[in-house]
Amino acid sequence: MQNQLVQSVTHRFYHAEPTGPETLLKLLVGLEAVDQGAECGQPSPNTPAGPRLGIGMDSCVIPLRHGGLSLVQTTDFFYPLVEDPYMMGRIACANVLSDLYAMGITECDNMLMLLSVSQKMSDKDRERVMPLMIRGFRDAAEEGGTSVTGGQTVVNPWIIIGGVASVVCQPNEFIMPDSAVPGDVLVLTKPLGTQVAVNAHQWIDLPDKWNKIKLVVSKEEVEQAYQEAMFSMATLNRTAAGLMHRFQAHAATDVTGFGLLGHARNLATTQRAEVAFVIHNLPIIAKMAAISKACGNLFNLLGGTSSETSGGLLVCLPREQAARFCAEVKGQGSGGGAWIIGIVEKGERGARIIDKPRIIEVPPRGTVAASQDNSSSASPAPNDTLS
Amino acid sequence: MQNQLVQSVTHRFYHAEPTGPETLLKLLVGLEAVDQGAECGQPSPNTPAGPRLGIGMDSCVIPLRHGGLSLVQTTDFFYPLVEDPYMMGRIACANVLSDLYAMGITECDNMLMLLSVSQKMSDKDRERVMPLMIRGFRDAAEEGGTSVTGGQTVVNPWIIIGGVASVVCQPNEFIMPDSAVPGDVLVLTKPLGTQVAVNAHQWIDLPDKWNKIKLVVSKEEVEQAYQEAMFSMATLNRTAAGLMHRFQAHAATDVTGFGLLGHARNLATTQRAEVAFVIHNLPIIAKMAAISKACGNLFNLLGGTSSETSGGLLVCLPREQAARFCAEVKGQGSGGGAWIIGIVEKGERGARIIDKPRIIEVPPRGTVAASQDNSSSASPAPNDTLS
Repeated sequence: MQNQLVQSVTHRFYHAEPTGPETLLKLLVGLEAVDQGAECGQPSPNTPAGPRLGIGMDSCVIPLRHGGLSLVQTTDFFYPLVEDPYMMGRIACANVLSDLYAMGITECDNMLMLLSVSQKMSDKDRERVMPLMIRGFRDAAEEGGTSVTGGQTVVNPWIIIGGVASVVCQPNEFIMPDSAVPGDVLVLTKPLGTQVAVNAHQWIDLPDKWNKIKLVVSKEEVEQAYQEAMFSMATLNRTAAGLMHRFQAHAATDVTGFGLLGHARNLATTQRAEVAFVIHNLPIIAKMAAISKACGNLFNLLGGTSSETSGGLLVCLPREQAARFCAEVKGQGSGGGAWIIGIVEKGERGARIIDKPRIIEVPPRGTVAASQDNSSSASPAPNDTLS
Repeated sequence: MQNQLVQSVTHRFYHAEPTGPETLLKLLVGLEAVDQGAECGQPSPNTPAGPRLGIGMDSCVIPLRHGGLSLVQTTDFFYPLVEDPYMMGRIACANVLSDLYAMGITECDNMLMLLSVSQKMSDKDRERVMPLMIRGFRDAAEEGGTSVTGGQTVVNPWIIIGGVASVVCQPNEFIMPDSAVPGDVLVLTKPLGTQVAVNAHQWIDLPDKWNKIKLVVSKEEVEQAYQEAMFSMATLNRTAAGLMHRFQAHAATDVTGFGLLGHARNLATTQRAEVAFVIHNLPIIAKMAAISKACGNLFNLLGGTSSETSGGLLVCLPREQAARFCAEVKGQGSGGGAWIIGIVEKGERGARIIDKPRIIEVPPRGTVAASQDNSSSASPAPNDTLS
């Protein structure tokens, strides 16, 4: 019944905002903008002594006047990219919280919701769609152990959904993302390919586009990939954030608008040690690599710069901890996966993908058995992926 | 020179967003929206014991896990309503901070900036306009003793500017807005009429509109009123916030989208005592009352529900403190005014304006001498306005 309702309202919902995930890219080039990497910049020079943060941090860390505490906060807002308003709300909230999780923070003291209603929606559509989106956002906040206590709503040509996540932390509650050392390995906690999946799903109804990819993928596979992308984007990175402490993670970021390689590069620049990140494996939602190839490397997915929304955490861990970290992420059943995707070498604070990375086809949940038959050679156990 | 530059870019800037101040009104009716009054709602039931907040609060107050501290935060974003990008940035920041000031908070630990660039702007316009707007926002933040450390920028049909202000407070740093008692008086720290001024200024170039008001106001007067509105909106309510402690304010709110009466009503509903707010005086930017009357009570300015942007604080104070509070606000030279506008009676937590309120014509700054000649009878000393 819920699905029926959602189905009936999503068409209009979808068309109320003519934007693709590429609009998630932050528009900072050429502006004297907030001098931030992804979400954050430098604290003012007159703040008290405390952890410093640099370009590329996912959240702001503001040393407070009170006993060693820091305010950690982040904001994100964007436009709907899936048709289901409830799931879109969940995704937006998961995406906001992810910036805290990338710092190894598992708690959130407060969430504000940022919302705009599209002026193009009828009253009826608005009354059906917006409450679902708000509920999805709230439910994800609740899953994150926090609640939405305020926000702002405006009217806009496009629907906007986003939020502000804030937490006041003691120093041991967060992990500054600057301590990777040569010998560490890189782990990714969600598969890549959300942008390709969302777009390919739109192409089902666009014959010109569909003809480009119909030889490599079926409509059912695209539908499954889209569902997988939607659930993956709506999954909180909270479990992984908690495990970062237990397995002594050295640094992490979350993969969003700049793609895996973009965020790996940002993270590399913030490292204290002279390191470089080398990526060997690309876990990708099944069939999305084939679609990208069929379109001449669509969105540069295989080059690592295809935008992701609410992507996984990219975590640097001591080599001996990585396999157990991956096993625990999977074992806790929170919907996430975990793959060892690369290594940390001595280098000049850059990141690269090797020439012929191994593509790990990640089967949609619910279709694991069938998909594994087709891709068993590309589904390595986490502890041997780099052998 | 600066003015020249601003003048040359503002025309396009202005037309990049076809919205008036009425879009500031929050769109909460009919939605299962964030259950907030202006900016905030109830904390989750499982937060630790601490100050409770109700509908109508200007900022969220979140009790923290750490030694009696609370996180107080607020967010606001909207569309440009003045032609000067730098001033628009200042106004947006002042408007965000104002929600903290309404709680008697004078400090802000962190500011995030929310921004969208209009897709309709040329690269050239964008590069000229956005840095000015960002600088205005940052300058106002600095004046508020804080700095912008992060935020989010997207592309949108319309320009958006806003922010998130957060502070971690000890209990004595904020004043819960719930302690008005009969006998208190009401003080307002900025004149009303910003919405009328902004719209009348647009009408200078629209003959059909201008003809309606040309008998009661000159173009020069409209230009002066617009400038006054712009500077008033860009003025921080920080001085008044600090003085709220010194003069034992019992409750306060800031006047924004719902107008003076709307916010007075919100504030009345949050009071612990059975009180009612009765407004006798309306301080209004000079000539704006005449314009409103000439248009059949435009925006219901005289009824108290014309939207204000970054309006003054509406403060409930003990009667014996009010005159000194007003004198100090004016004396500190921070650009604010202060007028005693009403009284707190026993009542059922409502607010009203008396039948024939006294209109206080507030002269534009820089034209005080000339205007006072015309309106000396309507410029009472603060301690005799209710006599």
